Amino acid sequence: MNAMKLSLIRSACSGLRVHPRSRAGGWTRRCPTVGPAAGQSTFRAASDATGRGTSAKLGLHLRQQSRKTDGSECAASLREVVQHTKDAMDVLQRRNPPIQPLLAIVQAGEDDSLLEINKKMAGKIGLNITQICLAKQFSEDEIVEEVLKLNEDPRVHGIYLHLPSAALTTRVLETLKPEKDIDGISDLNIGRLVRGDLSKGFVSPLASAVLDVLEKHDAPLEGKTVLLVGGEGRVGSALQCLIERSGMVALKNNWNLEILQRQVMQSDAVVLLGGGNIDILPTCFRPGAAVIHCEPTLESDDHAFELSSRSGIGYLTAAYRAQNVVRSCSRWIQGQQYRPWRLRSLKLQPLTPVPSDIEISRAQIPKPVNQLAEEVGLLPEELEAYGRSKAKVCLSLLDRLHTQPDGKYVLVAGITPTPLGEGKSTVTIGLVQALSAHLSLNSFACLRQPSQGPTFGVKGGAAGGGYAQVIPMEEFNLHLTGDIHAITAANNLVAAAIDARMLHEATQSDKALFNRLVPSVNGVRKFSPIQFSRLQRLGIDKTNPASLTPEEVTSFVRLDLDPSKITWQRVVDTNDRFLRKITVGQANTEKGQIRETGFDIAVASEIMAILALADSLEDMKNRLARMVVGTSRSGQPVTTEDLGVSGALTVLMKDAIKPTLMQTLEGTPVFVHAGPFANIAHGNSSVLADKLALKLVGRDGFVVTEAGFGADIGMEKFFNIKCRASGLRPNVVVLVATIRALKMHGGGPNVSAGAPLPKEYIDENLSLVAAGCHSNLKKQIQIAHLFGIPVVVALNVFKTDTQAEIDLVCEIAKGCGASDAVPCNHWAQGGRGSIKLAQAVNEAASRPSNFQFLYNIEMPIADKIRTIAQKVYGADDIELSPAAKDKIDYYNQQGYGLLPICMAKTHLSLSHMPDKKGAPTGFVLPIRDVRASIGAGFIYPLVGTMSTMPGLPTRPCFYDIDLDPVTGEITGLF
Amino acid sequence: MNAMKLSLIRSACSGLRVHPRSRAGGWTRRCPTVGPAAGQSTFRAASDATGRGTSAKLGLHLRQQSRKTDGSECAASLREVVQHTKDAMDVLQRRNPPIQPLLAIVQAGEDDSLLEINKKMAGKIGLNITQICLAKQFSEDEIVEEVLKLNEDPRVHGIYLHLPSAALTTRVLETLKPEKDIDGISDLNIGRLVRGDLSKGFVSPLASAVLDVLEKHDAPLEGKTVLLVGGEGRVGSALQCLIERSGMVALKNNWNLEILQRQVMQSDAVVLLGGGNIDILPTCFRPGAAVIHCEPTLESDDHAFELSSRSGIGYLTAAYRAQNVVRSCSRWIQGQQYRPWRLRSLKLQPLTPVPSDIEISRAQIPKPVNQLAEEVGLLPEELEAYGRSKAKVCLSLLDRLHTQPDGKYVLVAGITPTPLGEGKSTVTIGLVQALSAHLSLNSFACLRQPSQGPTFGVKGGAAGGGYAQVIPMEEFNLHLTGDIHAITAANNLVAAAIDARMLHEATQSDKALFNRLVPSVNGVRKFSPIQFSRLQRLGIDKTNPASLTPEEVTSFVRLDLDPSKITWQRVVDTNDRFLRKITVGQANTEKGQIRETGFDIAVASEIMAILALADSLEDMKNRLARMVVGTSRSGQPVTTEDLGVSGALTVLMKDAIKPTLMQTLEGTPVFVHAGPFANIAHGNSSVLADKLALKLVGRDGFVVTEAGFGADIGMEKFFNIKCRASGLRPNVVVLVATIRALKMHGGGPNVSAGAPLPKEYIDENLSLVAAGCHSNLKKQIQIAHLFGIPVVVALNVFKTDTQAEIDLVCEIAKGCGASDAVPCNHWAQGGRGSIKLAQAVNEAASRPSNFQFLYNIEMPIADKIRTIAQKVYGADDIELSPAAKDKIDYYNQQGYGLLPICMAKTHLSLSHMPDKKGAPTGFVLPIRDVRASIGAGFIYPLVGTMSTMPGLPTRPCFYDIDLDPVTGEITGLF
Repeated sequence: MNAMKLSLIRSACSGLRVHPRSRAGGWTRRCPTVGPAAGQSTFRAASDATGRGTSAKLGLHLRQQSRKTDGSECAASLREVVQHTKDAMDVLQRRNPPIQPLLAIVQAGEDDSLLEINKKMAGKIGLNITQICLAKQFSEDEIVEEVLKLNEDPRVHGIYLHLPSAALTTRVLETLKPEKDIDGISDLNIGRLVRGDLSKGFVSPLASAVLDVLEKHDAPLEGKTVLLVGGEGRVGSALQCLIERSGMVALKNNWNLEILQRQVMQSDAVVLLGGGNIDILPTCFRPGAAVIHCEPTLESDDHAFELSSRSGIGYLTAAYRAQNVVRSCSRWIQGQQYRPWRLRSLKLQPLTPVPSDIEISRAQIPKPVNQLAEEVGLLPEELEAYGRSKAKVCLSLLDRLHTQPDGKYVLVAGITPTPLGEGKSTVTIGLVQALSAHLSLNSFACLRQPSQGPTFGVKGGAAGGGYAQVIPMEEFNLHLTGDIHAITAANNLVAAAIDARMLHEATQSDKALFNRLVPSVNGVRKFSPIQFSRLQRLGIDKTNPASLTPEEVTSFVRLDLDPSKITWQRVVDTNDRFLRKITVGQANTEKGQIRETGFDIAVASEIMAILALADSLEDMKNRLARMVVGTSRSGQPVTTEDLGVSGALTVLMKDAIKPTLMQTLEGTPVFVHAGPFANIAHGNSSVLADKLALKLVGRDGFVVTEAGFGADIGMEKFFNIKCRASGLRPNVVVLVATIRALKMHGGGPNVSAGAPLPKEYIDENLSLVAAGCHSNLKKQIQIAHLFGIPVVVALNVFKTDTQAEIDLVCEIAKGCGASDAVPCNHWAQGGRGSIKLAQAVNEAASRPSNFQFLYNIEMPIADKIRTIAQKVYGADDIELSPAAKDKIDYYNQQGYGLLPICMAKTHLSLSHMPDKKGAPTGFVLPIRDVRASIGAGFIYPLVGTMSTMPGLPTRPCFYDIDLDPVTGEITGLF
Repeated sequence: MNAMKLSLIRSACSGLRVHPRSRAGGWTRRCPTVGPAAGQSTFRAASDATGRGTSAKLGLHLRQQSRKTDGSECAASLREVVQHTKDAMDVLQRRNPPIQPLLAIVQAGEDDSLLEINKKMAGKIGLNITQICLAKQFSEDEIVEEVLKLNEDPRVHGIYLHLPSAALTTRVLETLKPEKDIDGISDLNIGRLVRGDLSKGFVSPLASAVLDVLEKHDAPLEGKTVLLVGGEGRVGSALQCLIERSGMVALKNNWNLEILQRQVMQSDAVVLLGGGNIDILPTCFRPGAAVIHCEPTLESDDHAFELSSRSGIGYLTAAYRAQNVVRSCSRWIQGQQYRPWRLRSLKLQPLTPVPSDIEISRAQIPKPVNQLAEEVGLLPEELEAYGRSKAKVCLSLLDRLHTQPDGKYVLVAGITPTPLGEGKSTVTIGLVQALSAHLSLNSFACLRQPSQGPTFGVKGGAAGGGYAQVIPMEEFNLHLTGDIHAITAANNLVAAAIDARMLHEATQSDKALFNRLVPSVNGVRKFSPIQFSRLQRLGIDKTNPASLTPEEVTSFVRLDLDPSKITWQRVVDTNDRFLRKITVGQANTEKGQIRETGFDIAVASEIMAILALADSLEDMKNRLARMVVGTSRSGQPVTTEDLGVSGALTVLMKDAIKPTLMQTLEGTPVFVHAGPFANIAHGNSSVLADKLALKLVGRDGFVVTEAGFGADIGMEKFFNIKCRASGLRPNVVVLVATIRALKMHGGGPNVSAGAPLPKEYIDENLSLVAAGCHSNLKKQIQIAHLFGIPVVVALNVFKTDTQAEIDLVCEIAKGCGASDAVPCNHWAQGGRGSIKLAQAVNEAASRPSNFQFLYNIEMPIADKIRTIAQKVYGADDIELSPAAKDKIDYYNQQGYGLLPICMAKTHLSLSHMPDKKGAPTGFVLPIRDVRASIGAGFIYPLVGTMSTMPGLPTRPCFYDIDLDPVTGEITGLF
C-alpha cells in the first residue's frame, strides 16, 4: 500500500480515519490511544487470567456502539480450557510418570509481556518450558539451526516461534516439524485444517481462542456474519475455516478500506486481527455487534508483543497453546504404544513354474525401509538406514518399550535333515508372511545373517526361496550392513595383537617392554584404564608405574603366551580351504618366530557367538574382554583384555550390535542379525533381535526365529544356551519335516548333493514315510516336549509329494503328540500357502507352555554332556578321551565349570555317526576334545572332527554370478 | 444433513426448492433438467474447447436473471492458457530435448467424458499422458501402491487422481508427493496457497479456471462479492484464497439454506461448486449477477464425471492442469540445474589450547546427511544413506548432469615430508571449509578412505585434525560404508579360487574337470557366459561343449598356473606382520599342495587401484576381468575371467563403486572414496568421486583432491596416471610445506617418529628454512610447472613457527615461481584460518593453465621410467636389473607396453635414498624389479623394497581406544 493509494482511499471512505504505518514516512503518527468509550466494551480489555481488567495501548482503534459485554466469555473459556488441559496433563502423567510435556520457546532477546503470559499460563497448568533466546539481530540460519535441534530433541513436544512475522520465512516454516508445530503455522498443518482433518495437525491457538469467544457470545452467532479484519494470512485463514465450520459466515478484509465500511455495517461480529492502523467511527457498526481485538498492530516492532500481551485473548491463546503442547505429548506417547500394525503388504502373484529366487526377488519392489519401520512402530530416530531396503535399529528401543509386554515367541526347528536341507528358513519366512499379510497379526521373523563364503561356493544364498524370501535377496546375501566384516576386522585385530606381542616379548627386555607399554608422555607415565584391569587380575594394587617391583613389572609386561596353546584363529568370510592350516611369520622381519595356525570362516569366530548372545552394549563389551585367546607357559588363561585390545574390539563392533531390518516378499518385517556357525557354536540368531522384535509385535504378536541344524542340535542349544542367556521363554516349536527326509529316516537310500534323487524319493512310498515318522520325527517331537513346549509339525510340501503321503505324516505327527501338523506350500504360493500353519501356531501359542531347561547349570561338566547325549541323542553313555578329561579338569580349575554346553556334533544324525538315520540307539557318544568360548559363555565338546572352513568345489557358484553394468541387475544368485 | 433437518430448512426458505440427494431415501428425485432460460446464461454451457455450445444435464439448477453472457470469457481464457502452456512446453523441450512432461492419471474403470476432455487438451498441448486404470472396486492399498510407484517414477511430473472424492482419504493424500500434486489437493499445497507461497506448490486447476473466468468478466469484480456454494473443502478454500487475493470478497456457503438466500441476493457473482441439489428461483439473484457452474452435483456417482465434462470450465480446468504438469516438469529440471548452494554451514568456536581430534569431532553435531545432500543439489533418489552422517551417491548423477560444466579442479600435494607427515589432509579440509563456509563458493573435498590397520596401529585416523576434520571422525576411520571390506572379500575370493583351482587341476583328469566345469543340468550341457570369454581368448569358436576336441578340452579346463609365478596375494585390513610371508595348504585335505605366499594390507589390493581409476560400472567390470593373477607354466597370463570369478567380483563391488558423502566440521561436503596404497599403486582418491563433485560444484565451484606422499610421487601419478584415465585437467596445485620439513631439507638433524624434536625445529632458524626452500620446495614447484599447472604454496603453520620464518618461506616460494604463497592456520582456527589460501587458490584458478603429460604413452617402458627419474627425481639415469629387463620384455610381448608407469619409490626423498634430503642430484635410480597391475592399468617398477603390510608396535593405538557402553562415546581415536 503506498501513500498515493492510501490518500485516495481516505477520501473515498468518509467513515474511516486512516493512520498509515509510521514507517511509511511523511505521515503523522496516530495520536495517543483512548480506551474503550463508555457503553462499549471489547474483549481485549475484558480480563486477564488473574481477573484484573486492563487498559491496553492498542494501535487499532474501534469506537463502536457494540453490545455491552463484561468479558465473561473470555474468562469462562479460559477456566474451561485450563481445567481441560490440566486434566489431560494429569491423565498423561499418571499413565507415563517419567514424561513431562515440554514447550520450547524460540525468542529474540528478553521476555516480553506476551511471553510472560505464556509462562504464567504454563505455570498454572504445570507445563514445562524451555527458552531459546536468540540475539536481537539474528539470522535465518540461526533460527533454522535451533529449530532443527528442537525437532530432533525427543523431550520437546511443542515449538513456539515467538519471533517477528518477517522471521517466519518459507525456509523456517519448512524446517519446523509439523508434529511439534503447536501454533499451527506450518503449511501442512494449515492444509490439514482446511481439509478438516485435525487428527494429526494443530490449530492456531489464537484462532481457537477467538472462535471460543465467538461461540460463547451470549447472542448466538450461528448463521451470523463475522468479519475478520487484517492479520497474517495464516491466522486469518485458520479462523475463517473454524468460523465457517461452526456455521457462521466469515468475511475477510485485509484493510481494503473501500469495502470495509460496508462490511463492518453488515457484520454481527468484527474480529480485528491487527496489522493496520485505522480508527473506525462508532457509527459504522451495526448496533449490538461484538468486537474482538486480538492482535497487536505491530505499529512498532519493539512494542508489538507488549501490546497484545495484556489482552484477555492473550491468556486464552496461551491456554490453547499449552493445550496443544499437552496434546502433542499425548500423541507422541500414543504413537509409541502397542497397536495392531497398519502394514501395507506387498501383493504376490505367484507364477507357475516358480521362477528362480533372484527373478522372484527382483520382480517385487520392496517398500522403502523407513516406511516399513514406521508401519511397525519404530521412531525415525531409532532407525539408521543403509540404502533403501536395509536399516539398523537402535537398541534404545528396548528402553522406550520396556513396559510393553512381549509377543509370542516361536522357534522353527527341523527333523534331522538330508544333506540338501529341508527348508527351515523358507518355513520361517512363509509363516510370518501368512501371519502378517494374511491373518493381520503383527509378526517378525528373526533370521541369521548368512556367511558370504557359501554364497560363492556351493550352497548359494540363504534368504529363503521361491515365494518365501527376504528381499532384496542380493542385499541379504552380500555384505548386508557389514556385521560380518566388522567381526572379521575385530577377530583379526586380536590375532595380529597376539603374534605381534609374542614377537615383541621375544625380542625385548622387561624394561624395554615396560617403557614402551607405559611410555612417558610429556614427562608423565601412567597406566591406561585397560592396563589397570590387567594389574587388578594380577593382584597388583598400584597406580604409579614407578612403584612396581621388578617381579611385578615382569608379570605385567609378559603375557608369556605358549605358542602351542594359542586357541585363537584368524578368519575370512571366504571359502578358502588353503588357509585351514598355515605357517605364519616366515618373513625375515618376524625374526624366525614362525608357528602353525589357521583361518576359520568368519562366522565361526567367537565374536560372532558373542554378538548373538549379548543383550546390551555393555554385556558385549564385557564378553569381548573375557575372551581367552590362549594359555601362558605357566598355564594361565590370557584374555583380549590382557592384550589391551578389548576396547578397540568394542569400537569395531559398535554398529554390528544393532539388528538389521529387512522385509519379506510380502512386505512383512524381518530382523537379520548374527549367524554363529552351528558346527562349533550355537547356530542361532541374536538375542537382541528377538528382544526388539518381541517388543515391536506386542502382546498379541509373534516373533518367529530359527535354530540351525536339526532340533537335536539347534533347538537344544536354543533352549539351553540362548534362552538361558536371554531369559526369554518360547511358546511354540514349529518342527519342519519333508517327505524326502522322512523317507530317508524310514530306510530310503542315501541322498547326496549333486547326485540325482533315487526313485523312492520321487514315487509314493507310504511305508518309508511311516517308518521315518515313527523314528526321527517322533523322537524330535519328544525332544521338544522334554523342554515343555508344544510342537506344530510343518510339512514342507514338494511337488513330488502325494496327498496320501502328506495325510499320513500329519496323522502320525499328531499321534506322536504334536499339537497340530499341517502341510505348507509357501515355496510355491508365499504366505497364502502357510495360512494353515499360521493358524495352527496361533492356536498352539494360546495354550499354556511349561518351559524348563534340560540340565541344571551347576551340574559337573561331564554330567551336563551326558544328560544331552542320553536324553536328546538317545546315547547309552558318553566316553571322554584323556584330552577331554584334562580339559574339563582345567576348565573346572579356572572357574569355567558353570557354563552351559554347546555340542559340536554332526547334524546329519541324532548320533555322532552321519549315516545312522532314524532314531539310533545303543551307542556311546565319544568326546574327542573339549574347548571353551569364555567370552561367548559356553563349553564345546567335540564329537568327531568339525570343519570350520568350507572349501570351493571345481565349479563354484561364482561361475554364474554376474552383474549387468547398464541395468545393475544381478544374475546367478540363488 | 438428515431428513428432519432438511425439511425444516425447506419450510424456512421460501425462495429455494430443495432436492435432497437421491441416496437419502424417501425423497423424490429432482425433475429432468431444463437448460438455461432465455436471457440467462451460465459459463458451464458457454463453450467447450472445440467451440461447440453444450447443454449439459446438471443436477444443480439456477434460474436467475443474471447478466447475459455468451461464454466468451471461458473461450478467451482457454486460448490464452493453452497458448501459454504450449509456449512453456516449447521452451522446455528446446532446452532439454530428451525430456517430455508426463501426466499420470489414476482412474477407476473406463475413461469418462471428463477424462476425454483432459486427454483432448493434452493432445492439443502436446502433453504425454499415462493412465493407470484401477478396477471399479478398488482398495485404499491399491491407490497407495500406485501413487507410491508414480511418486518414485522420475518420468512422471504430475499425478491426477481422477477418483471419487471419498477415495481421496487422508492416507492417500499423505502418500501423494506434493511435488507431483498438480491438482493441489495435498495438505501441504493447500497450506502453501493459504500462506501465499506459490513458488513450490500447485493451485487447484479448477479454482484457477474459475478465478480466470471471474477476472475476465466484463463487469470488473474488484471489491465485489463472490459467493461460493457447495463443493469440496479443498477446492472451495483454494478458490476463496484466490478470490480474496484478487481483491474480491469471498463468501462460502456449504448449502446452509437458511442464509443462502440472503447471500445470493447480496452477491455479484455466484460460483456453484456442486454437491447439493437445489433450485434457486430467478428472483433470488441480484440483477446482472454472474453465475458459474463448475462441478457436477455428484447426484449419482456414476454420472458425476459425465456431467461436468461438458462444461467449458471443464476444458479450462484441463488446460490449467496441463499447465501445472508443464510447470512441474520445468521445476524438476530447474532443481537439477547448477546454482550456488544454499549451504547451512556449522558454526565453529575454536578453543585454545586445541582439544583432541575426537573431542572436537564429538562437540560438533553433523547435519543429517540427506540435508547436506539436498543443499548440494543431489536428488533424494541419488542418495543411499548409511546411518545419519554418511551416504553413498549414485553414479546416475553423471548422466543427469552431463551437460553441466565442471568446476575448478585443485590438487593438494606436498613437499617431501618428514616421517611425521606435513598435513596435506588438514590443508585440503581447511581449504574447502574456507571456500564453502567463508567465501560462499561451492566446493567439495575428495579424500581417500583410510585403511583401518593404521587406525589401530601407529598412525591413528586420517580424517584431518584439529579444526579441519571430516566428521564424525570415528565413522570416517572405521568401516565407513564398507568399501574396503568389499575389496577384501573380492580380493580373497580370487585367492581362494586360485588355490582351489590348482588343487582341482592337480587331482582330476581333463574329463573329470570338464564334466564338473560344464555339468549336465537336466540333461543339457552348456557353457556359462564367462566360459565363452575364455574360449574366445583361446581362439575356440564353438558353442556346443560336446564339439570340443580333446586338445581344446585340455586348454579350456587347465589354467595350468605355475605356483611359483602367482602374483596374487591375499589381503586383510589389519596391520598383521606375521602374514607377510606364510605357507598355505598344510591341512591334509589340501593333499600336499602347499606353497609360499603372503597377505598385503587390503588397500594394497589391485582391486582398490581399480576402484580408484574406474570411471563407470562397466569400466570397473572390465578392469576386474582383466586382472592377471599369475602365469601358466607355458608363460600365458591367467586372468580372473579365466578363473570364472570376475562377474562375482563385480557383484561384490557393486556398492563400493559409489562414493561416500560426508561433511567437514563446518558442514561442507566431502567425498570419501578409494584409497590405493601409495607404496605400490597411485595413492589418489577415486576418479568417480572427482567427476561427481566437479558436476555438483558447477562452473564456479571447486573440487579439492589430495595426492599421497610428496609431489614427486603423488602428484606425478595424479597427472600421468589418474588424469590420463579420467580425462580431467587440473587448474591449480596447492603445495603443502611446513617449516619443520623445510628445515630438515635445509640440513637440519634427523626427524623421527616417537623421538623428541631437536631444538633446530623449535627455535627460529632462518638459514635452515631458506636452504630448505631453495632445495626441495623449489624443485617441487618446478615439477608442478613441468605439467603446466600454477602452484600455490600453503605453509601449514605450527605454533613454534616465527613470523620471520613464515614471511621468508612465502617470499622465497613466490621467487621460485609460485603464483602465491600463504600461511594457513586451519588446524587451530578451521576454515577461517585458511581464507587467504582460499583466495589465493581462487585467484590462481582464474588464470589459464596449460596442462601436458610428462611422457607420451607410446614411449618404450624403460624410456617412460627414465623420463620420470630424470625430470622429476633429478636422477642422471636409471639402471635396470636383469629381472627388471626380463619383465619389461615379457610385458611388451604380452601387449602391456602402452600402460603408464606407477613408480614404487620411498616418499622420504626425491631420490631412492630416504636419508638424502633437499633436492639430490648425481644419482642413478636402480630399478630392482618391474611388476604390473593389468586391471588397474599400470606398470610398477620397484625401486628398493616396498612394504605392503605394516606391523603393530609394542604398544599400538588400540590400548587407548575404548567405548563407553552407556553414552556410546568413543575415546582414544585420533
